[in-house]
Formats: sequence, structure tokens, C-alpha cells
Amino acid sequence: MNINIIRYILGLVLKIEAGLLLLPAIVGMFYREDTFSAYLIVATLTFIVGSIVSMAKPKNTVFHLKEGCIATALSWILLSLVGAIPFVITKEIPSFVDAFFETVSGFTTTGASILSDVESISHASLFWRSFTHWVGGMGVLVFLLAIMPLSGGSNINLMKAESPGPSVGKLVPKVRSSATILYQIYFGMTLIQFVLLLIFKMPVFDAMCLTFGTAGTGGFGVRNDSIASYSVYQQWIIGIFMMLFGINFNFYYFFLRKKMRKAFAIEEVRWYLLFIIGATLGIFLQLGGMVSGFEHKLRVAFFQVVSMITTTGYSTADFNVWLPNAQLILLLLMFSGACAGSTGGGFKVSRIVILLKAFVREIKSYIHPKSVGQIRMDKSPLPEGVVKSTMVYLATYILIFIVSHFLITLDGKDFLTSFSAVTATFNNIGPGLSEVGPMSNYASLSAFSKLVLSFDMLAGRLELFPMLLLITPAMWKNTHKQSKHDLVSLF
Amino acid sequence: MNINIIRYILGLVLKIEAGLLLLPAIVGMFYREDTFSAYLIVATLTFIVGSIVSMAKPKNTVFHLKEGCIATALSWILLSLVGAIPFVITKEIPSFVDAFFETVSGFTTTGASILSDVESISHASLFWRSFTHWVGGMGVLVFLLAIMPLSGGSNINLMKAESPGPSVGKLVPKVRSSATILYQIYFGMTLIQFVLLLIFKMPVFDAMCLTFGTAGTGGFGVRNDSIASYSVYQQWIIGIFMMLFGINFNFYYFFLRKKMRKAFAIEEVRWYLLFIIGATLGIFLQLGGMVSGFEHKLRVAFFQVVSMITTTGYSTADFNVWLPNAQLILLLLMFSGACAGSTGGGFKVSRIVILLKAFVREIKSYIHPKSVGQIRMDKSPLPEGVVKSTMVYLATYILIFIVSHFLITLDGKDFLTSFSAVTATFNNIGPGLSEVGPMSNYASLSAFSKLVLSFDMLAGRLELFPMLLLITPAMWKNTHKQSKHDLVSLF
Repeated sequence: MNINIIRYILGLVLKIEAGLLLLPAIVGMFYREDTFSAYLIVATLTFIVGSIVSMAKPKNTVFHLKEGCIATALSWILLSLVGAIPFVITKEIPSFVDAFFETVSGFTTTGASILSDVESISHASLFWRSFTHWVGGMGVLVFLLAIMPLSGGSNINLMKAESPGPSVGKLVPKVRSSATILYQIYFGMTLIQFVLLLIFKMPVFDAMCLTFGTAGTGGFGVRNDSIASYSVYQQWIIGIFMMLFGINFNFYYFFLRKKMRKAFAIEEVRWYLLFIIGATLGIFLQLGGMVSGFEHKLRVAFFQVVSMITTTGYSTADFNVWLPNAQLILLLLMFSGACAGSTGGGFKVSRIVILLKAFVREIKSYIHPKSVGQIRMDKSPLPEGVVKSTMVYLATYILIFIVSHFLITLDGKDFLTSFSAVTATFNNIGPGLSEVGPMSNYASLSAFSKLVLSFDMLAGRLELFPMLLLITPAMWKNTHKQSKHDLVSLF
Repeated sequence: MNINIIRYILGLVLKIEAGLLLLPAIVGMFYREDTFSAYLIVATLTFIVGSIVSMAKPKNTVFHLKEGCIATALSWILLSLVGAIPFVITKEIPSFVDAFFETVSGFTTTGASILSDVESISHASLFWRSFTHWVGGMGVLVFLLAIMPLSGGSNINLMKAESPGPSVGKLVPKVRSSATILYQIYFGMTLIQFVLLLIFKMPVFDAMCLTFGTAGTGGFGVRNDSIASYSVYQQWIIGIFMMLFGINFNFYYFFLRKKMRKAFAIEEVRWYLLFIIGATLGIFLQLGGMVSGFEHKLRVAFFQVVSMITTTGYSTADFNVWLPNAQLILLLLMFSGACAGSTGGGFKVSRIVILLKAFVREIKSYIHPKSVGQIRMDKSPLPEGVVKSTMVYLATYILIFIVSHFLITLDGKDFLTSFSAVTATFNNIGPGLSEVGPMSNYASLSAFSKLVLSFDMLAGRLELFPMLLLITPAMWKNTHKQSKHDLVSLF
């Protein structure tokens, strides 16, 4: 383990966070709130600590998969630990565990909250909460681009456009150029949504925070009723942009390079849109007398569907009172999640498609034994390694889910609360059901449960394995000689 | 598709069922109940129809995997269709769908019931209900021995003792000899339990029915409170025999051949016992003030644990009032299920062990890339095909579960009812929770839901694929030329 390079990266992360913390300080100053000083102080101290930590450049700049995973996991945790401090200083969230939970929820773009009355929170803190979503969303794109390709088989067409797999020297410039394009897309779409919301007369502060929450598929809002009290057009804009941010960014990449055929050939995107259309229709038909008017029904159904499949977690209606089948559709969307290579969480549409294809192949093997074909995706054959990785991912996903659920039930909460709390955090959605439902929050859980759910948010966000490696004792032994195949020179 | 051989097998199945139906007729005569005539009439007619159907021997006696699967699925359905008729004639279960559900539940050793008052049912019918469990349990052993080996990779050490995989000519005699040994074990253990229950003063009729229910890991009882009102010793005997019938029958096979080292080397059995010990301890500690006395607590915990892990479904306590964590332990046991190669249902312990090992291997691959080892089971390397089949099984299992749950929620039942109804039938357990809980039954569901759950019981019992093939349109096209590798001469 190259501890030095991890130390160096964490130092850089602290310096970046110091810069980010200046923004809520400015917002606080603008609104003449006392809370601004908390952000300014934390920013200053974080910059000093970060500078000290990253002072000595590591001599050995070689970077393996495991260093990548550990650095990623620790960065996310460190960001959250530091980002939680202002909430405690301003006494808006007095308990550090609560503040940590809220900040993890922000950076992982989950949107699960322990706050019962967000309208009482200062502008600076509301801005910081929503801004962590936006930063987290960008962080995920970088992670998918820079770290996941190192793991070989596991990176099912995440950002495959320009990442040819690990090859010393070549990767870094290619990652840099792809990253630049991705940032441009992310920035550009954020800006368009923000401007559109302003055009349709949303207050500037709300438009900013809600755009951050949509872009990161996070879900923190600034009103207690989430999105329900915004105007019809504002709801449609947020709904449509949630859908857009859940699309695999490869699509936009091809789109901008005018490779239309390639863009529309991405199977995952087509399945994703199919899921949205099917689920919206299914719920639309079941809203019955609960919502009146064609447009209203369609809007309510579409909004909740895209909010769930992208794992954003905004709501315009209390779906706790919907028919059981409509509720199950939402639950299935929560697990499905959005496209791989987007800011959305969950299991990911492409993984579901791969599993469905593996299932169909198995059925065929019973009818025509000895003629087992290869699974095809986006019109080209999918390596068996990817199929196997997807299945291992499924098993790992279930394992983490079960262990978490087991630990949460020790809190004594009922089945629906504990089950939905894990579902909503592990898939980075936000609100669950029953005691952690959209009309309630996570405050009533024990500190232990909050830490377990924080782990789940991080694990769900970082494709499971980085967080698991962090708690694997064998990871920290430094005995194994690495082969040259899995390393990348970082600088 | 060799339709002729399937017709012939179904004819034989009918003739066998005619014989089986004579037993409840005899029981009815013994108790001087009018219901005996219903069984006698159905037995006679079934024998006549069976004889006609199986009159012409098929010319082509070649038997492929797909014929095996289709014949198995159709046999089980036919057994249930015919077995349901007496319930309707005696008017004890007037609705045919209900009677079919009850009989499927019997033959699949599930134990889910639509009867609210079993104590009002005639002895003949109670006997028939329980007897279907015992027959079903034996049917499963035959199925695992004769059909599953044809599917190559999928038969994870089910009955591997004497089934060397498909090879024309050799398989049938070997299957016959293994089958004989298995029947002897099954008969012998049934007899021992029956005698023990008699020694500990259980009425003969109860002892007979409950032994059938235990041996097949079914769960139909003869009293409204299941096992709660039997004596302490009787409860212990049933509990211990549930555990024994959930063990991989390879264990007994080796045991009887005095290959002790081989018997105790079966990893699955050790994990199975570990699960039982861990779960019993976990629940024991959480029973607190609800149950008093060390022995009583231990008995209640152990009984419910083995009842769930073996998917029998007997109960001695209302676990609806237990602590959430204790309830979750039971739920996890329901999904786990017993050993492969036993009469128990569920996902099977060996599959869980394989998935856990694949998970550990994946973690290792992050730490030491390029040094991916092979998974070992029972001290020898496990072929990658088996690992992959297990994963496909998991994906298929989840898919069927989701589709079923989706269909059941159309009934308008709450989440816990629909979720637990699918859990309890698909894993062949019996009672679920909420509206289908141990103190209630499945009568309130719609006919459509009952048919979906009947499909689930059959799919769960027959390792998923035979039932899926039955509803795959491509299965019924007769265009493909089979290779010689996957066929077996049956006669």
C-alpha cells in the first residue's frame, strides 16, 4: 500500500473543500446571516491542514487499483467529516453524528435528512447542503472515469468513451480530456436548468439549490413539502431534468460530437426510457380519483417515477396513500436506479439488462443445450468477465443489504422502517417509508443506525467495493508484490 | 419435443396417483366417514384414464433435458389437478381453485392453506393433505436425482454421490440404485419419527400426519394451532426431525456406507448446522420476558428456526409479536432454505455458500489483481460453470420473485401481505405474515393471486427452470436438432 500517495491526495481534497466552503460563507454574507463566519473559519482551518498534509510530494507516484479505491473511500469520508463541522458550530445540527449523516447524505447525493424543519435553517447552510449534492455528483463522474476502469471487468460501459482500460502513461491524458468534456456537460446542463427555473419565476436561491439537487440526483430541498408547492411549469422542468441527469453521460458525449447513431444505439438509455414510460403509465392508470385532471395525473406520475429511478428523492405527492401496486412500482424503480455513468444511484439499468440477458440465455440453454451464445450489448459481444462481474455485484449488493438491515433492526424499528431506510440510503434515494417516510425524517434512529446508514450511502455511491476494501483487514497488509499490469502513474 | 414420451410418463403418474388415493379411502373407511367414497371414485377413474393414456408405449424412448423438465412440471401439475378433486366432491373445499391451491401446496411441500378450521375436516382429507407432503418430498428426491443431473452445471452437489452426469445407458441403472438407497433412508427416517412420536404418546393419526409433514418439510398440521398444543417431548422430536430432513441426503448416504469422513466433510451440512445454531442463539437472546424458563425459551427458538430454515412452516409460538431483529432472522432463514439434496425448499445453503465464496474472491481480486483463485467446496475445486449457474439462479430467483410480487399487489393487499405471501410460497414454507400470517390463511386472496402463488410453489419446488420452460413459447417449437450429448435412453 502506497500510504504516501493517499496522504497526498487527501491533502488535495482538503484544499479543494476549503475552496468549496467559501461559497456558503459568501451566501451567508449576502443574506447577512451570522452563520457565514462558521463556514469561513472551517474553510480557513481546512486549507491550512490540507496544505500541511499535502506539503511533501510522494516520491513514488505509482497508483494501483487498491490505492484508488482506498483514496476514493477516504476522500468521501473526509469531505463529510469536515463538511459536517459548520452545521455543529452554527448549532443548526447540534449532534456531530447527525451532522455527519446529513453531510454524507449530501455528498453521496442521497438526500436523506435528519432535519424536520428545513425552512428554519439559514441560507448559508441550506446552500451548503444542496451544494454538496452538486459536488458529489461531479465527484461520482470523476470516480467512474478515473478509478473504475482500473478494476477491469467491473466497469460496464461506464464512461467507456475514452477510457481504454489501464495502460501506463496513456490513461491520464485521456482521462483528463474526457473529464473536461464531462464537466462541460455537467456545468452546461446545470446552467440550463437554473436559467429555465428563473425564466419560470422561481426565486434565485430556490432555483440554485434545487438545480444542485437535481443535477447530483440528490434530493435536498429548501421547503418542508419538497417540490409540492412549486408551480406546474417548475415541477415539469425539475422532472425533465431529473430524467436527463439519469441518462448515461456517454450519450451526451456522443451527442455533442455529433455521433447521433452511436448516441441512440446505447441500449441502456433505451431501456431506461422504457422503464420510465412503462412505470409512468402504470402509475397514471392507478391514480384514479386521488388526482384529478389528465395533466396533473401525468405530472404526478412522471415526477415520482423519474425522482425514484434517478434516486433523487424529490416528491410532489404523498405516495404512502397510493395503491399497493403503484407503490411497488416505485420501490422497484428505487432498486433499479438510473443509468451507469450518470449521477444517479441504485443498482443501475445496464446491470439489470445484463442480468435479464443472462437469464434469457440460460432459458435458451435448456432448450438448445450446447449452443450457448454470447451476450450482446450495444450491438457488440459483451465479455464474459463483465457478465460475471455483474453477477458478483448483485450478490455483494444483496449481502451488504442484508447485513445492514440486520444491524438496523437491532434499533427495534418495524420492518417497513428498517427495510425502507436501508433501501433509501443504499440506493442513494433519500426518503424511505413509515418512520423514515417523505413526511418524516431519520432523526429518530440511534447513532449506531445512522452510522450504518452512512456506510450504506457511501457504499452505494462508490460501487460497493471501495468501502468494503476499507474494512477488509487484509487490505492493510503490505506484503504482496503488485504486478505491473494494474498500475498507473498518476503524475 | 418428444410428446409421446411425455404422454406416457403422465399416464404412469396417473396410475401411481390412483394407488396413492386408495390410502385416504382406507383411512375414511376406518373412521367410517362418508368422504371415503370420494377418494375411491377418483382413484378408480384416475386409474382408468391413466391406463388409457399410457397404453401405447412410445417408440422413441430417448429423453432430453427439456423433456425431463416438461414432464416433471406437468406431472406435478397433473398430480395436483387430480388430487384436488376429492376436496371438491366432499365439499370440504368447494372452490376448485382453492382445492388446487391446497393440493399444490401439499405436493410442493409448502403447507400454505386456505382452510381456516382444519379441525372440522374429515380424517380422510386430513390424511390426504399430509400424505401429499410425504409424496412430494419423495418426488423431489427423485427429481434431483434423475432430472437435474441432465442440466450439467446447474446441479450443485445435489445427489452427486452416484450421478456421474449424463452418459447414455449408464445413468439409468445408477439412478435406480441410488434412488433405492434414498427411498430407504426416507422411509427409515419417517418410520423412526413415527415410532418415537407414538412412544411419547401422540395419537396415531396425529403422529402419522405430522410425520408426513415433517419428512416432506411441508407443514400441514391437524390442529388449528399447528404444533403449539403438543407436549414438550413431541415438540422436540418434531423439531429435531425437521432439522434432520433438511440435511443433504448425501450425508446419510455416506453415513450408511460408513464413509464418516466424507459425510462430515460436506461443507453445506456444516454451514447449515452453523446457521441453525447462530439463529437459535440470536432468537433465544431476544425472547426476553416473552417466554420464561431456559428449556422453554430454547425449544421455542430452536423449533421456529428449524421450521423456517427447512421451510416446513410449523409453529409453536406467534412470532408476529417478536422483536424486529428476531423476526428478520426468521425471514432470512426462509430465504436461505435447507440443504440442496434434501426435501427442504428455499434458495439452498450450498448456493449461499458459493455466493459468499465468490464474494470473498472478488474482494481478494481487488487487493491482489491477476491472482484470482478457484473456489473450493468440500475440499475440491468447484467448476466455474457451477459458480456461474448459481449466480444465474440468483438472478432468475429474484426475477420470478419480483414478477410474482407485482402480480399479487394487483389484488390490493398491503406490502407485508403480498411480500410475505410470495416469500412463503416461493420458498415452500407455508404461512406468511399479516393477512396470510400463521394465525390466518390464504383464503382471502383472489383466484388470480392463488394461481400465481401456485406457480411460485411449483417453481420454487422444481428449481425454477422446469416451470419457466413450460411457459416459454420457443420450448414448444420442434425445429431444433438435438446433439447426442444431452440425451438419455429412459427404458
